[in-house]
Amino acid sequence: MANKKDNTALEKIVSLCKRRGFVYPSSEIYGGLAAIYDYGHYGTLLKNNIRDSWWKDMIQMRDDVVGLDSAIFMHPTTWVASGHVGGFNDPQIDCKVCKNRFRADHLLKSYDIEADKATLEEINKHLSELRAKKKLKCPNCGSTNLTDAKVFSLMVKSNIGSPTEEFTEENVVYLRPETCGGIYLEYKNTVDSLHKKLPFGIAQVGKAFRNEIVARQFIFRTREFEQMEMQYFLHPSMMKEKYEMWKELRWNWYLANGIPADKIKWYKHEKLAHYASEAYDILYDFKIFGDFDEVEGIHARGNWDLTQHAKFSGVDLNYTDDDGKKFVPHVMETSAGLNRMLLMFLDFAYSEEAVKDETRIVMKFPKHLAPIKIAIFPLLRNKPELVKKAKELYLKLAKNYMCEFDDNGNIGKRYRRQDEIGTPYCVTVDFDSLEKGDVTVRDRDTMEQVRVKIADLENFFQDKFSR
Amino acid sequence: MANKKDNTALEKIVSLCKRRGFVYPSSEIYGGLAAIYDYGHYGTLLKNNIRDSWWKDMIQMRDDVVGLDSAIFMHPTTWVASGHVGGFNDPQIDCKVCKNRFRADHLLKSYDIEADKATLEEINKHLSELRAKKKLKCPNCGSTNLTDAKVFSLMVKSNIGSPTEEFTEENVVYLRPETCGGIYLEYKNTVDSLHKKLPFGIAQVGKAFRNEIVARQFIFRTREFEQMEMQYFLHPSMMKEKYEMWKELRWNWYLANGIPADKIKWYKHEKLAHYASEAYDILYDFKIFGDFDEVEGIHARGNWDLTQHAKFSGVDLNYTDDDGKKFVPHVMETSAGLNRMLLMFLDFAYSEEAVKDETRIVMKFPKHLAPIKIAIFPLLRNKPELVKKAKELYLKLAKNYMCEFDDNGNIGKRYRRQDEIGTPYCVTVDFDSLEKGDVTVRDRDTMEQVRVKIADLENFFQDKFSR
Repeated sequence: MANKKDNTALEKIVSLCKRRGFVYPSSEIYGGLAAIYDYGHYGTLLKNNIRDSWWKDMIQMRDDVVGLDSAIFMHPTTWVASGHVGGFNDPQIDCKVCKNRFRADHLLKSYDIEADKATLEEINKHLSELRAKKKLKCPNCGSTNLTDAKVFSLMVKSNIGSPTEEFTEENVVYLRPETCGGIYLEYKNTVDSLHKKLPFGIAQVGKAFRNEIVARQFIFRTREFEQMEMQYFLHPSMMKEKYEMWKELRWNWYLANGIPADKIKWYKHEKLAHYASEAYDILYDFKIFGDFDEVEGIHARGNWDLTQHAKFSGVDLNYTDDDGKKFVPHVMETSAGLNRMLLMFLDFAYSEEAVKDETRIVMKFPKHLAPIKIAIFPLLRNKPELVKKAKELYLKLAKNYMCEFDDNGNIGKRYRRQDEIGTPYCVTVDFDSLEKGDVTVRDRDTMEQVRVKIADLENFFQDKFSR
Repeated sequence: MANKKDNTALEKIVSLCKRRGFVYPSSEIYGGLAAIYDYGHYGTLLKNNIRDSWWKDMIQMRDDVVGLDSAIFMHPTTWVASGHVGGFNDPQIDCKVCKNRFRADHLLKSYDIEADKATLEEINKHLSELRAKKKLKCPNCGSTNLTDAKVFSLMVKSNIGSPTEEFTEENVVYLRPETCGGIYLEYKNTVDSLHKKLPFGIAQVGKAFRNEIVARQFIFRTREFEQMEMQYFLHPSMMKEKYEMWKELRWNWYLANGIPADKIKWYKHEKLAHYASEAYDILYDFKIFGDFDEVEGIHARGNWDLTQHAKFSGVDLNYTDDDGKKFVPHVMETSAGLNRMLLMFLDFAYSEEAVKDETRIVMKFPKHLAPIKIAIFPLLRNKPELVKKAKELYLKLAKNYMCEFDDNGNIGKRYRRQDEIGTPYCVTVDFDSLEKGDVTVRDRDTMEQVRVKIADLENFFQDKFSR
């Protein structure tokens, strides 16, 4: 039931993001750095609010989940044990003419050949067949002069801690390709220091890095990105029950954050890794892509990760239960992308409405996630008494809410700007405010205006921004 | 007026950090990764609270500062323009026997030779003289077989976005050595999208990376760390006034966050970079180091950075004022280390008190920064009615405060554990609670206990955690 792809919608959102200060292409003055983005004032605030909403539900409100902030850099053996070194690859194909690089499986998909989980041999067989039929062409320049597919590692390498400035293979330290590696490595310290009993989870928000062959889909898939992951450790006998519990909890998180049930759906993985017993993704119906795409994965992973780390480190990662029985805990993981969740909220919030002869663009963020909660305007910027009163009000409200003071241009223009950044309420201080002590409060969604006594404002806003 | 160095104090804090779940050595099961640390549950919560307290004062409460979250990776020319490529080095000296590496200037300091800003030639001259006197020895193994000093770049290199898996010098992309680079690169987008007028600031919190030659001082100096930086852009005529303003604001931030004035002091830099007009650091009196050490820098940097980026990018970074005059803004920066600020609060909070025949260890964090605000206990874990009531209370309070439910061991033991993680209040549900509806609230600092009606608890805690 996906929407039709609306390229205009994607362009409009990318454009609004830059114009209004949500998301900028990275290093733009130097010509950019592909597949990497910077978050401007409003994008950062929105992203922080999403992060905090996740953190509150996953950690603050649960006595069975604790937080962690593990480093981006880990001992290189971590990624040998996890199978990433040697195994975390995409098939790459190069055009010898225009020098562009492509994902070979994506290229095959454009010929209606499904090669998502195919081996390199299978991919090259498909490519040979296309070549024989003279069908294989570079999607960029149309040349038939393409290389065979080869494996390309997604692991980003660094020389951190290296005793020499030269970069040598024996000194490689990887940037983590996923945050959960740090959770597995700190499983033992967490149990030892916090005395948590199974089942319990460890959750964290942090950056991860992947050398994606091609940049695409704006901030949906980038080389530097943020994950929000939780690994829930348990006895295998509890897996079924807890897997269902977390599926429900995570589904409800979307609803509680304003995403309607008909905009998300489950995708069940049929092909599972050998250690996994169940894997579902939550897909969101992106209008900018015209399709449902993954925003979160919920996976029953068995005890493979801890077993591998125990084997490679030589450290005992068994849990001892109250009866003295020892076992390596199994893991139920929830893994969400913070940047693509932000993209989901941008996609969901973007609205155009005909107002008189104009089109009003309004970002209808759920109020608790809106970057700016309240904008405060003096009716006229050249009337010091209005400006003074509005500034006072701004400073008072800013103690409890992220607010913005704006005296730039006429009120209509200010409303439009606040609509485009999704501010739920605009408060205008006018001459009556000075005499009668009330202000105009304008609602983003209904555009209705009400007069509220300044003394009653804190009350008025009291529960406007709670979920 | 520094305290005497208390090695025991450092050991005690490092030990408490691991034992209680504040800070763990990174990748410990694999033998560790030097100069990199992971933050456990309480360390993460404490760090987040410090970050949020900074963010609130620097961004939420100021209409002249906006937020940013720029990527760790930037176009490599960024660091050529800034002078980091080629110029961001430390002098390294190697022991040929034990293979340890040292900072040559630190080694000279142990011979009472100040070489902090010395050139490589000056350093090697000092080393030669010591060698001639047969005084030069490896601080680790005592060998006299040391190399000459050489320059070692602190820049961490990666192969992100590289078209080949091999790491070649022409494909190097650096990890940022400081967060402010991203602020300079987004100066233009910020002005264009937010229409900010000078003076205004851009602030962000994020990770930075330096290939420090040696690890030392726990989390004070690490290879992966977090900065909280703000660049305040202004016309040079305003520098003096705004510099004084920010010096005062930043000093007061420490006081507002519970650090007494006699624990911090100013350090004025006498040797300035050619583009700088003034530079002060805020030093904190670390008892674990027995000395005042830098936690924040406040620098008048001129317009050097923006001028360099304009020159290297070819993009006009002039600001046009209301009179149409163009100029490259000057910059006033505040730069604080989040990890060392956390270390400051750990150092400050750590207390030992004689209580009866025991020593009570208590982390006296300012209440608004404490990782856990309220711990909730059922008096006995084997009485379901107490556990049920305590759980209910926990879930109610957790909506507004970071709380912890604990039914492990006797009450005395639970108090000691909460003292060690710095929890301001412990609430115990006992049999009277069931009958009379009141609970015992115990204060961390005074250890006094009061009975409070459950219905009055929200009121009781209302303004206990505001600054």
